[in-house]
Formats: sequence, structure tokens, C-alpha cells
Amino acid sequence: MNLIQHLDYLFNPRSVAVIGASNIPGKWGCDILNLLLTRGQRKVYPINKNRAEVLGVKAYPGLAEVPDTVDFAVITVSSEALPAAMEDCVRNGVKAALIISGGFAETGKEGAKAEQKIVEIARRGGIRFVGPNCAGHFNTHSELFTATYLPPVKQGPASFVTQSGNLGLTVLAMGSEMGLGFSKYVSSGNEADSHFEDYLEYLGQDEETKVILGYVEGLREGKRFLKLAREITRKKPVVIMKVGRTDSGARAARSHTAALSGSDLVSDAAFKQAGVIRVEEVGELIEVALVLLGQPLPRGNRAAVLTVGGGLGVIAADALRRHGLEIPYLSPTTIDKLNSRLSGRWSRGNPVDASGDLSYPCLLPLLEDENIDAVVIACAVWAAAGFSAFMSTPPWDRNNLTDLDQLLRAIEEESLKNLGVTMELMKRYQKPVILSAWVNNEVKGSELYRKLEGNYLTPYPTPDRAAKALSRLVEYSEYLGVARKR
Amino acid sequence: MNLIQHLDYLFNPRSVAVIGASNIPGKWGCDILNLLLTRGQRKVYPINKNRAEVLGVKAYPGLAEVPDTVDFAVITVSSEALPAAMEDCVRNGVKAALIISGGFAETGKEGAKAEQKIVEIARRGGIRFVGPNCAGHFNTHSELFTATYLPPVKQGPASFVTQSGNLGLTVLAMGSEMGLGFSKYVSSGNEADSHFEDYLEYLGQDEETKVILGYVEGLREGKRFLKLAREITRKKPVVIMKVGRTDSGARAARSHTAALSGSDLVSDAAFKQAGVIRVEEVGELIEVALVLLGQPLPRGNRAAVLTVGGGLGVIAADALRRHGLEIPYLSPTTIDKLNSRLSGRWSRGNPVDASGDLSYPCLLPLLEDENIDAVVIACAVWAAAGFSAFMSTPPWDRNNLTDLDQLLRAIEEESLKNLGVTMELMKRYQKPVILSAWVNNEVKGSELYRKLEGNYLTPYPTPDRAAKALSRLVEYSEYLGVARKR
Repeated sequence: MNLIQHLDYLFNPRSVAVIGASNIPGKWGCDILNLLLTRGQRKVYPINKNRAEVLGVKAYPGLAEVPDTVDFAVITVSSEALPAAMEDCVRNGVKAALIISGGFAETGKEGAKAEQKIVEIARRGGIRFVGPNCAGHFNTHSELFTATYLPPVKQGPASFVTQSGNLGLTVLAMGSEMGLGFSKYVSSGNEADSHFEDYLEYLGQDEETKVILGYVEGLREGKRFLKLAREITRKKPVVIMKVGRTDSGARAARSHTAALSGSDLVSDAAFKQAGVIRVEEVGELIEVALVLLGQPLPRGNRAAVLTVGGGLGVIAADALRRHGLEIPYLSPTTIDKLNSRLSGRWSRGNPVDASGDLSYPCLLPLLEDENIDAVVIACAVWAAAGFSAFMSTPPWDRNNLTDLDQLLRAIEEESLKNLGVTMELMKRYQKPVILSAWVNNEVKGSELYRKLEGNYLTPYPTPDRAAKALSRLVEYSEYLGVARKR
Repeated sequence: MNLIQHLDYLFNPRSVAVIGASNIPGKWGCDILNLLLTRGQRKVYPINKNRAEVLGVKAYPGLAEVPDTVDFAVITVSSEALPAAMEDCVRNGVKAALIISGGFAETGKEGAKAEQKIVEIARRGGIRFVGPNCAGHFNTHSELFTATYLPPVKQGPASFVTQSGNLGLTVLAMGSEMGLGFSKYVSSGNEADSHFEDYLEYLGQDEETKVILGYVEGLREGKRFLKLAREITRKKPVVIMKVGRTDSGARAARSHTAALSGSDLVSDAAFKQAGVIRVEEVGELIEVALVLLGQPLPRGNRAAVLTVGGGLGVIAADALRRHGLEIPYLSPTTIDKLNSRLSGRWSRGNPVDASGDLSYPCLLPLLEDENIDAVVIACAVWAAAGFSAFMSTPPWDRNNLTDLDQLLRAIEEESLKNLGVTMELMKRYQKPVILSAWVNNEVKGSELYRKLEGNYLTPYPTPDRAAKALSRLVEYSEYLGVARKR
């Protein structure tokens, strides 16, 4: 059985056993069993040697007593009981396992020895496993969840492998707040058997995964990682937050997941050569995933900034330059076009500052300008008004609207109506259009916001975050040879 | 009349006129009048030459007809009508004005000339004014608001001067979301008369202002700014986001508020020498204000990291190092103390990783350690549990709690009970304790969260943001000579 087939059993098993099933909420053996019983459709076998029933379901004293082949086993028993549990898995013919239990390599040499013993049993029996010392996984497509304490997760195109379960929860929560859906998720724990590289290989060929996110403390197979990354990043983006860059960080990583000290041999330069997008901050994992999913790959690094109000445009321009993008002068043709659409007060330059003119359609001329590869729209606190510049192509008649409320409603309707056209134009011209606007909870319920979010066009909270995300997209496009190299 | 007295009329007028008062919502003259009529207690005089009443209040054709001395005038008329309006103000004896109207220096040479004429009229009449081309101001203490489209703003210790009204709204919204209250706010517009430096001087001596925030595109009086900053930063912190560092940013800034091109002569080094905390991202304005308000000034740059879960601690350690802090080894005494409080699985090092032990009181030993100057607590998605490590001093008995819900409730109660003690200890040991945890909206309603927020201990969303904020606090403490210089 090859790796892909093995990991298919991890993500799409027909039958699952929970070894260490429990009735006590707060215990992994209870919370995970509960997830398995309440979500998805498959056979679930609780294993508990003292109880005939767990959570109202028939339980078995051991895997030997289960009258079925089990594809996948979740193991939550103590480290002492683990070897026997793994032997049981081998005897049953289990294909994939996930070991929550800690107390192994992360605790020192003794633990590492015990861990190695588990690996040997599993290898002998043809089992691949996640962990130990991990915090579960999921596949939204098969509705399989073994990760507990999850924030609300919606189905979507991002898959995420994390060497920290707690950091995983934070990233999933951030994703959920910005409307990013997930396909597959693995908290990889100590990676005694399956390594980060194995999950990467699986997700590289997984059609439901459109972007791969990773949190890495140490890579056990640096060369393989780079080889895989080089292949995969031609087809889909790989975004990695790699910590342990500093002495203290590396020390902490070693103590946390027994990550190899030699792991930083995979340098920034090597990541870059393999097309991996390396991010520095937790928030970027989500922010960069969105820009990769929602935007076309730009053909160059020349950006226009469009704003209804001054300072936000200045911040965007400054941040874009700091991240290596250019803010070219507008062509005379573009200025002519904008002159005919905007009032006399506009900035006549790049950034295009409409100076308070709320609803004029300035986007199209920028998309048509051959010297512009991407547009950043910087709005203040969300007003539907801010988006009209973005959406309103072609121009529309607003002269008969004098009441402000009426105007704002009309702008939102117009924006909604034009969203499809705008997205079509972004694709046709192959130019990203990135939005920034501070949004409150009330706005998040609006139809326009939900549609933006559904298309990965979620506004970034501030212009500097939008600019940084765009710069990562440009880097990736340059790597692929779509954008001219600087 | 000196500058402070003049600006007192801006922030605490007894009577206000709105020149250009209007009944049409969406027009400045209507929205501002409405704010003045509905908030605060003072005499308000709408000026409109065609109407006897505006928004149901008696209106006057001109200031000449108002049977009262007006302290403060808001002017929203067109640029053409502005000179006459300012002449009226002079005749009435107005002390301070705020000019919303645009169409001046930001539009080019002609506009600059017209603007200069207004300055001359005002100077002759002893009037100081804000703007033109500004977006209002407020003082929460006198309940005076001329800034429209405001997010919910609560009263508090931060004051903010911004050279962009739209950016101002974003920062206020961010502050509101993280629980930061404001005292005074000015959108300074073109700064034809009153400069950023004037507001800085005022806020420096204003007792209601504990921290000064600024968004700056260009400084008109660089030397004066530095002299003022040197004096003020001995008493209260000044946090500035200065844009226009790049060529494109500077170009955009010139076009936006006619900021002087020579303004970047005030360099990073000069800011530093004056004790100004210069931030790079919009979000930092709020994040750094909170750390300055909620935390004691540390005596050095040596941080401990405390986490219930692995990766978050690694991220914190990495980010702290990147920002120049140290993560020292723990003293043997501290390790002994922690050994007696934590289970055998803890990391036995810095970061202190409690390895899933949710409710042990590890904070006190770290505060007692002479080699530690500050603590960062890195939690995953908010669980009251995560905070117990922070709050629970001294240890409490949790052995009789077996049910998870019961345990979590007990931990939250314990945390609440100990918040006062913890804050007292932070002060006594003079050691900041910075919290990071991703928080959802439901949690924001909890009593514990609201109390943390009320004390400027709002958790940062991710460990890297917490680390960055702490590093700014350390810098400031080093500047003041409280922390040992590195």
C-alpha cells in the first residue's frame, strides 16, 4: 500500500475505533468519540475493557472482539498501554492510526525509546500513524473530526498541517472569522511515523485542497520537503510559517515536539527556490491564503492604489513600496478617463484619491491601464459607499439620488449587481483587486459582505495588511514566471 | 491668550455655532449640528442665511445676529464662502474654529493662496483653527463631537491626533474593538493654522490624556516637535505612525494634505532620541497604547513565556527574540518551585510549557525570579482555563473537581477572584504580564474578559502581536532609564 492509499484511510475511513473510549466529558476518549458519533456517517467502535457501552453505543473490550476490519483507530490510552494497543491494531488489520497520547520523545530519551518501539510495531503491521502527542485531525469533505475544541469550521479549499495543535486552533478560528473554509487538517504531534512531508505529499495530490498551509517547528526530511515543494508549488501554493529561527525559538521547539536541531538547515533561500511562501506572523497564514484563493496571479509588481480618503492611500502606497512593489505614475489616457468620471478634486495621480467622491467607478480605467498589474482599494470603516469604486463598472446614473440613505442603499445594490462583472474583469485582465476596510459585526451579516467573503475577497482590516498579502501573491507569481521578475 | 487657552475653547466651549447648518442628512452641516444638539450640554447656534430653523432649532442668518459670544465655530461652507465666514467669526469674538471645507492647499497653488488668506483673517482676529479639509474632532469628557461616522467610542485615557480623518475612523474602530477608551481626538486636515505640534503641546499638559497617539504624514515644525516630544515623553508616552517613508508614500502624502516634502528630515533616529515610540502598522497604534496603559514599566528586557500549549510558546519566544528581547534560562529556584506546582510533563525551561495542565499557578514563581523582567502568556483560542495560570496566585485546591464544566467554571471564578491580586503583584514586582489568546464574540461578553479589558489587559490575538507590543514597552522603559540599556 502506498503513502497516498494509507493516508486515504486517515481522511476517509469507512470504520473507526476509539481505543480508550470514555464517558467522561473533557477526556479525549469521550470528546473524540462524541465527535465521531455525531458527525459523518461511518461505523464507530468504542474500545473500553471495563464497559459494555460508552456514550450509549456498544463497546468492546479490545479490537480483537470487534467483528469487523477497522480502517482507522484513534488511540487515547496512556503511554504505558500504547504498545499493546498498537499490537491490537496490527492484529485487526488497521490501516491508519492517530495517537493523542503524550509522554514520548517530547519528554526525553526514555520517551524517545518508547516512541521508537511503537513505530516498529506499526511498521511491522503496515500501519501509518499520526502523532503521538497530537491534537487530532479532520476532513470536512468526509465529515470526519478527531480534533476537539474546534472553532466553527466551514468546508473549503485550504488544508493545514500544524506541528502545534494549539496554534492550529488559533489559525482555524482566524480563518473562520475571515470566511476561509478548510478541507483537511492535521495536528502532526511528534511525527514519530508520518512526517510533515508525508502530509504535504498527500495534500499535493488531493484535488479538494487548493492551497496548503503549514506551521513548522522542525522538518525531519529537509531534502524531501524541498523536492516535494518544488513539484507541488507549480500546481498549488504552499504557505509556511516556520518558527525556531532564533536561538530561543529553536530551543523551545526542541522541547515542544522534539523537532530536530538541524532543521534550520532548510533556509529562507531554499524555501524561496522551492516556491514556498514563507510567512512571519500567524495572521498571515490566513491573509495570504485568501489572496491566493481569491485573486488572479498578477503579471508584474506595479500596483495602483484607489481610495476614497487620503491617509489610507498613503499607508497602502508606503506599505506596498516597503514590500517591494511599485506604484507607477498613471498613463495620460488613464488620467483622462478618470477626469471624465471623477470630480475636479481627485488626486490626479497614483494613489487615486477620489477625495470623498463616494460612488464613482474608477476601477475600470485602472484595470485597463497597461502599466498597472494590481489594485489595492483602501476604504475607511466599512461603508457600502467605499465599495462602489470597486464594484461599479460600468458607470451608473446616481444623479437622481439626493437623500443619503437612498444613495447608500443604491450604492450597495449597485455594488452587489456588479460583483460578478468586477470578478470577471479581474480574471480577464488578470489583475488582483485587494480590498481593505475595517468591518464591524453588523456589516458581516450584509449580503454584499457575505458574497465578498464567499469569493475570498474578504476585506483586510487595514491597508498595510492588504499590501503585505498582495506582495506575497506577487512573489509567488514571479516564482511561477507569470509575473515579470523584478 | 496662549495656545493652551485657545485649544481649551476647541475642546471645552460653552457655546458653539455651526456655519453652514443644514437639514439634509449626509451634509456635514447637518450631521455635525445633529451631533452637537444630541450630545453634551451647551448653547448651539445654527447659522443659515435662508432658514429660520434648522433641525428644529432657531437658526440665524449670520454670526452677527447671534445675541451671544460664541466660543467655538464649526465651518462647513464652500471654500468661496469661507473668507466671509471667518470675518464673521472675528467680529463675534470667536476663540476657536474648525473648518471642514476642502478645496485649499491640497488642490494646488491657488488653493494654498486662498488658505493663506483665511489664516491671515483668523490671526488678525485672534482665532486659532483646525483644518481646513479636516473631518472633525471630539472630547469625550465634555461630550463634544464634531467628527461624524464615528464607531462607538468610549471615554478613556488615549488621545489621538491624525492627519487623515479616514485613518482616524479605522483606528478608533480598532480601539473600540479592543476596549481602548479615548479622551480627545483631532483630524487635523491641512494644518493651515494649528499644527500637529500645537495639539501635541496641548495633550502633553492635558491631565485627562495618559497616552498620545499620532498619525503623521508630514511635520511642519520638526524641531519644535522634537523639543516637545522630549519633554512630554518623560511624563507620558507618545506613539506615532509616520508614513511617507518611501518615495511613493511621500508623493501620496504631499498630494493628500499638502504635507511638506522636507518632513522626512525628522528621522527614525531623531524620533528615538526624543523618546517617541514609532510604529509601522496601523494596528500597532492600539496594541502599543494598551501595553503602555495596562502594564508597569519593566526593569529590563528579559522575558519569560508561559503557555499551556507548545507552538504558541515557540512563536512567542521567536518573536520576542526577533524584537530584541531575551529569553533567559530559569533559575534553579524557579525550576524547583515550578516542579512543585506542575506535573512531571512540563518543559522545565523557558518557555514554561505546562503541557496541557490547565489550571496550575505558574505565574508567581516567574514574577519572583530576579532574572525575569516580563512575562508573556500565550494561550490558544480562549478558554477560561488558559487564564488560570495567569490569575491563580496563590495555588488553589482543584482536586475535588472532576467534571470538566465544573472545573472550567471554577477556574473562571478563581481567575476573576485573583485578578486584583495578580495586578497588585505585577505592580509590586514591576513586571508586565502580557496575554495572548484568540477570542470570539461570545467570550467578549464574559465578566472576566470585560474586567481584563477594563484594565487594558485585553488579550492580543496572537503571540507575535503580544511580543511586538511588549518590545515597544521595553524600548520606552529603556529610554526613560527604568530598564537597563541593552
